[in-house]
Amino acid sequence: MAFKEILRQVVESVDGAIGAIVIGYDGIPIDEYVLEDVTLDLHLLAVEYSSILRDIKKTLEVLGSGDMEEVSINTGTTRVIMRPVTDEFFVALALEAEGNFGKGRFVLKRDAGKLREALA
Amino acid sequence: MAFKEILRQVVESVDGAIGAIVIGYDGIPIDEYVLEDVTLDLHLLAVEYSSILRDIKKTLEVLGSGDMEEVSINTGTTRVIMRPVTDEFFVALALEAEGNFGKGRFVLKRDAGKLREALA
Repeated sequence: MAFKEILRQVVESVDGAIGAIVIGYDGIPIDEYVLEDVTLDLHLLAVEYSSILRDIKKTLEVLGSGDMEEVSINTGTTRVIMRPVTDEFFVALALEAEGNFGKGRFVLKRDAGKLREALA
Repeated sequence: MAFKEILRQVVESVDGAIGAIVIGYDGIPIDEYVLEDVTLDLHLLAVEYSSILRDIKKTLEVLGSGDMEEVSINTGTTRVIMRPVTDEFFVALALEAEGNFGKGRFVLKRDAGKLREALA
């Protein structure tokens, strides 16, 4: 299945989801799917967050507290859930503040494997 | 109510919670409550994460995407949920990997106000 199709299914499975993107830890995006009427610049957000995830990966190595599985950053306007797909790429799912955060975590975990296979 | 008492109530309200700490974004801790038989160094972890939260705050300002409300960093062994208490301090709740993440988010949100009052 094509990347964008998997990302579309993730977004459409979660109430309040507005977009999803697969992007490298170096900030170079692979593909994204964003709802049409959304003003959020998911691309820019993911580029900024890629640098934060790199720092988190380094910190977890220093602490020896296990591999990064999921990071979320929630503000008054947007919730973003991120999961590693491979050592080089992660997927980020953005939701409105009222979006279904628990469902978002579940669907992203469920479909990260599909994205990994599509990258192979 | 004393800090440690609020932190104890948070930890004891959540299945799988192992400790909670209030710490400054500068990495200087105020108080913590950690279960006795836990090997996790919550203090060290919170110091490392304080630097990550500082970067996230800066990034959110650049993006203009709302104030930081909640950040979580989950690994194969530990889940950590963090919320700002004031502009200077945040609270971090650590759970085992099998801990009740949803309940942890709920309780931390519910009790962040008590911690804010205790700081005032």
